[in-house]
Amino acid sequence: MNNLLNKIINDTKIYANQGEVATYIPELSKMNKNISGIVVVDMENNIYSAGDTNIKFTIQSMSNIVTLILALMDHGEKVFDKVGKEPSGDPFNSLKRLTNINTHKPFNPMINAGSITITSMVKANNKEERIERIIKLIKDLSGNKDIEINMDVYNSELKTGDKNRSIAYFLKDKNILEGEVCDVLDTYFKQCSIEINCFDLANIGATLANDGISTISGKRIVPSEYATIAKAFMFTCGMYDDSGEFAVEVGIPAKSGVSGGIFCSVPNKMGIGVLGPSLDKKGNSIVGIEMLKILTNEKKLCIFN
Amino acid sequence: MNNLLNKIINDTKIYANQGEVATYIPELSKMNKNISGIVVVDMENNIYSAGDTNIKFTIQSMSNIVTLILALMDHGEKVFDKVGKEPSGDPFNSLKRLTNINTHKPFNPMINAGSITITSMVKANNKEERIERIIKLIKDLSGNKDIEINMDVYNSELKTGDKNRSIAYFLKDKNILEGEVCDVLDTYFKQCSIEINCFDLANIGATLANDGISTISGKRIVPSEYATIAKAFMFTCGMYDDSGEFAVEVGIPAKSGVSGGIFCSVPNKMGIGVLGPSLDKKGNSIVGIEMLKILTNEKKLCIFN
Amino acid sequence: MNNLLNKIINDTKIYANQGEVATYIPELSKMNKNISGIVVVDMENNIYSAGDTNIKFTIQSMSNIVTLILALMDHGEKVFDKVGKEPSGDPFNSLKRLTNINTHKPFNPMINAGSITITSMVKANNKEERIERIIKLIKDLSGNKDIEINMDVYNSELKTGDKNRSIAYFLKDKNILEGEVCDVLDTYFKQCSIEINCFDLANIGATLANDGISTISGKRIVPSEYATIAKAFMFTCGMYDDSGEFAVEVGIPAKSGVSGGIFCSVPNKMGIGVLGPSLDKKGNSIVGIEMLKILTNEKKLCIFN
Amino acid sequence: MNNLLNKIINDTKIYANQGEVATYIPELSKMNKNISGIVVVDMENNIYSAGDTNIKFTIQSMSNIVTLILALMDHGEKVFDKVGKEPSGDPFNSLKRLTNINTHKPFNPMINAGSITITSMVKANNKEERIERIIKLIKDLSGNKDIEINMDVYNSELKTGDKNRSIAYFLKDKNILEGEVCDVLDTYFKQCSIEINCFDLANIGATLANDGISTISGKRIVPSEYATIAKAFMFTCGMYDDSGEFAVEVGIPAKSGVSGGIFCSVPNKMGIGVLGPSLDKKGNSIVGIEMLKILTNEKKLCIFN
Repeated sequence: MNNLLNKIINDTKIYANQGEVATYIPELSKMNKNISGIVVVDMENNIYSAGDTNIKFTIQSMSNIVTLILALMDHGEKVFDKVGKEPSGDPFNSLKRLTNINTHKPFNPMINAGSITITSMVKANNKEERIERIIKLIKDLSGNKDIEINMDVYNSELKTGDKNRSIAYFLKDKNILEGEVCDVLDTYFKQCSIEINCFDLANIGATLANDGISTISGKRIVPSEYATIAKAFMFTCGMYDDSGEFAVEVGIPAKSGVSGGIFCSVPNKMGIGVLGPSLDKKGNSIVGIEMLKILTNEKKLCIFN
Repeated sequence: MNNLLNKIINDTKIYANQGEVATYIPELSKMNKNISGIVVVDMENNIYSAGDTNIKFTIQSMSNIVTLILALMDHGEKVFDKVGKEPSGDPFNSLKRLTNINTHKPFNPMINAGSITITSMVKANNKEERIERIIKLIKDLSGNKDIEINMDVYNSELKTGDKNRSIAYFLKDKNILEGEVCDVLDTYFKQCSIEINCFDLANIGATLANDGISTISGKRIVPSEYATIAKAFMFTCGMYDDSGEFAVEVGIPAKSGVSGGIFCSVPNKMGIGVLGPSLDKKGNSIVGIEMLKILTNEKKLCIFN
Repeated sequence: MNNLLNKIINDTKIYANQGEVATYIPELSKMNKNISGIVVVDMENNIYSAGDTNIKFTIQSMSNIVTLILALMDHGEKVFDKVGKEPSGDPFNSLKRLTNINTHKPFNPMINAGSITITSMVKANNKEERIERIIKLIKDLSGNKDIEINMDVYNSELKTGDKNRSIAYFLKDKNILEGEVCDVLDTYFKQCSIEINCFDLANIGATLANDGISTISGKRIVPSEYATIAKAFMFTCGMYDDSGEFAVEVGIPAKSGVSGGIFCSVPNKMGIGVLGPSLDKKGNSIVGIEMLKILTNEKKLCIFN
Repeated sequence: MNNLLNKIINDTKIYANQGEVATYIPELSKMNKNISGIVVVDMENNIYSAGDTNIKFTIQSMSNIVTLILALMDHGEKVFDKVGKEPSGDPFNSLKRLTNINTHKPFNPMINAGSITITSMVKANNKEERIERIIKLIKDLSGNKDIEINMDVYNSELKTGDKNRSIAYFLKDKNILEGEVCDVLDTYFKQCSIEINCFDLANIGATLANDGISTISGKRIVPSEYATIAKAFMFTCGMYDDSGEFAVEVGIPAKSGVSGGIFCSVPNKMGIGVLGPSLDKKGNSIVGIEMLKILTNEKKLCIFN
């Protein structure tokens, strides 16, 4: 497997030139678009890796899976009274569908409108406690106790967060978002600024692949049914408005972030974490997708085969 | 004329039951929906009136004409680089078209997205100075030196302004709105909370009908070309998404506010101010429109006849 | 006046290069984009002209005013149960708003969806009779007995009419359009292919400006109230999704066609017909608009002055 | 298994009252909403069944999977130059997204706009040959040589097909649809009118579950890669705009039709065919979904477990 991963790293380097590093958050634009890394963790906790696997980057919208799990643990499926389950076919940060439909209910928990709403549903006495719960679950899912927020990215998010403010006030006006808009967005910007690496992503994916039980500690981190729901949303909505394409061309549950990371959860087989900061037009890692195509094909991971 | 106005007041009272007082701002919902008033001021400054003409109410989006004139005086037609000239066919507070079109440029200066942008273009060193300039122009247009802000309505607007916050942050994100969102909205909420009565509205209409020259003081308040532009926008966009209906059924330049006021400017003939707090579904005064239909018909005011 | 018109023709020739002749109907693309003409007919039937005034061209969507008048004469304002009165802010041949709103009622009688519906409402025993009634009214409005259909353009419309077919079947499915889609579209394509020249357009405009009474024959052609409605729609929706711009910058009732013609109706003053086949992006004659700007400015025709 | 299926039939009968039989095609509205049936075919061609399994009904949009496979066999993945791969979040017969996006490319091959385009891509010398190829593939997939068209339903589709005509002419205008609109729609209406029963549906599902090889004949019917693509689209777009809900709550590849049938393909495990003509608001069989929920739960079929 390590040989395969090394080959994958080498064979996909060239794709980095076809995209660009995210620029809408200044801090993200500092990343080197030519780095790439991949980590695989199987159900026996064997770890395989290649490339730039120790580089830290922010979790961005990959955190949406974490907050969704927390909200489900807090409220059960009542979460879906506020947020739908359907792919939207629109860019993740779009207000278009939200303003076009009569209910104004966010289409799913993966687009910004949905994930901001989900964040507001994570129970806590105050915003400090809310972000602590989110960090705690990421630590448990990844088995890494040193998870923390990158404050430079957080400050960068604060400065460029007007689109998310527009979305949040829209949801507040429609009584979908509860609580103070400023507090909810503070948590949201912080959760997106949590730093992880490819090992963390692979471990998060492995825990979900293993029915919610950590392959490191053997402890149940997530109830089985919510691990299933998390994988379902990763599959249908995890790759922004390219999720359908990814389902056809790759075919495994995956969640992407604009930092260039993707984590995957192949049921009962493995967790995968990849990094490649060069993004395509939909906001997904170009090199990351190419790596996953090869790995999925070689190891016959597609869930429809 | 006074007899006609009294008859109009009596004959249109019954329409008040067909609508409702605006409720989205709690302070507005306190108005009595059965009051109504009408004032006409002609080009020789003759004043005719009937009904509840001394009742004060807030100017709401009728202030958009005032800020448009100020922005035109400050920037000339460069104003239209930021805001379009087309009726949108959508409700005044809609985000729908804004998010659906590629330019994200507000359709016109009368809908909220456009008028918030226009407010941001009124030159001033700070928000205090900006609102002072707006109040000053309303004083000059109406010939009333006692114009001031109703602070209860202002506070009410502040509490329920989330839709406008959503719009403003959207425009900020698209680089259409300049300056601090909070400052611009503070001015916007204040300008909407300025108190006037039917005499003030009729005088504002008369000044614009008289090519921008006050019929009271004889002084030019608005350059001729901007008085024309103001009347054009009143005609095409002044009655929200009922402007086309009003153009066909009444046919004079008019601007409506959700407080139930409407002011009209019949070129070279008269200014008209009406009040009737009961609103139709589009947000226009039901009694007000009925009064204007009779008056326009009796006095052959339609600009196409 | 003739001197002024000659000067206008010369001063606006240069604008032809800024646009393109309509190409979506092959037959229209054969027009020479450098020709231009202007005709003015006043209320005393004085006729002034300059430029290429004898060139024939098809009436295209300028015919929408004619069918609207016929439908009003047949059904009164019940016409508006099927078609609205609001400018849409969208291109004339758009399906966007139609599919986005819940009623699916065409916004106004000037966009294709509305005008196709209006055509279906012109009473007739069969499609031959329907088109004859339309031609008859154009003859009466223009005082020209030699009006006929250009069959080459008609055949060209037939071949390229898929967008209109899509619109018509959509309206049929929503029970807005009655009758056979094929028959209605046959009439619609024929009415658009009726040939006129600048004199005809000026005379149509003059008849409407003169309250519906022909300045040639002195006979009433259109009931006063429907002449007023026609002018109102020309003003609010006559120049496609540039009607708001035209209202602010020119300010007279006008209806445009993609052949490059525009006819105007200045109430109680004059009818104007212009031709200039080079179109801007909205589908209006570039040279035509420039000619109207100068004429309106010189003769103070803007209805808000 | 047969006991389980009988229990499922009994336990889900009550749900029929919560919905209605499709009425938009008169012929469909004649179905009895209280019938229901279920058939399971495993990879060893064992057949289990319960309920009204011999009742024939039309395949409707379940045929979209068949034409997609044919188009892929004819053109490979070039099919996706014309039709996208993303769930749209909109009703299957919507024109909304199509008119709102700049490319006007149908979102996916399962909504009407996409499936009409796919039908036009099935290679044939004429429309008779095209429908024959479609029927032939259904015979091969189901192992049933007696598949034929229900001409009453076909005639009913012809009469009520205006929405599809509108879609097809829209696509023709945008150069997405090739060939004659009438011919393509004739094939489309016919393919929707093909009659099958629950056994046929289960066998089609089993063939796709078995990597494209018939569990009856052992012959390869569909290339492996296209069987995978078919299952991917069933999963992401197979249940109309309820596909995301179904992915979370059931979690197997399935394709629904408005006749009340659903066929499922559980990779390497089984094909399932269900019938229940009572539909929910999205157009899916209410009883069918309830049956699949129980079966999937009991047999742990969810692809994420």
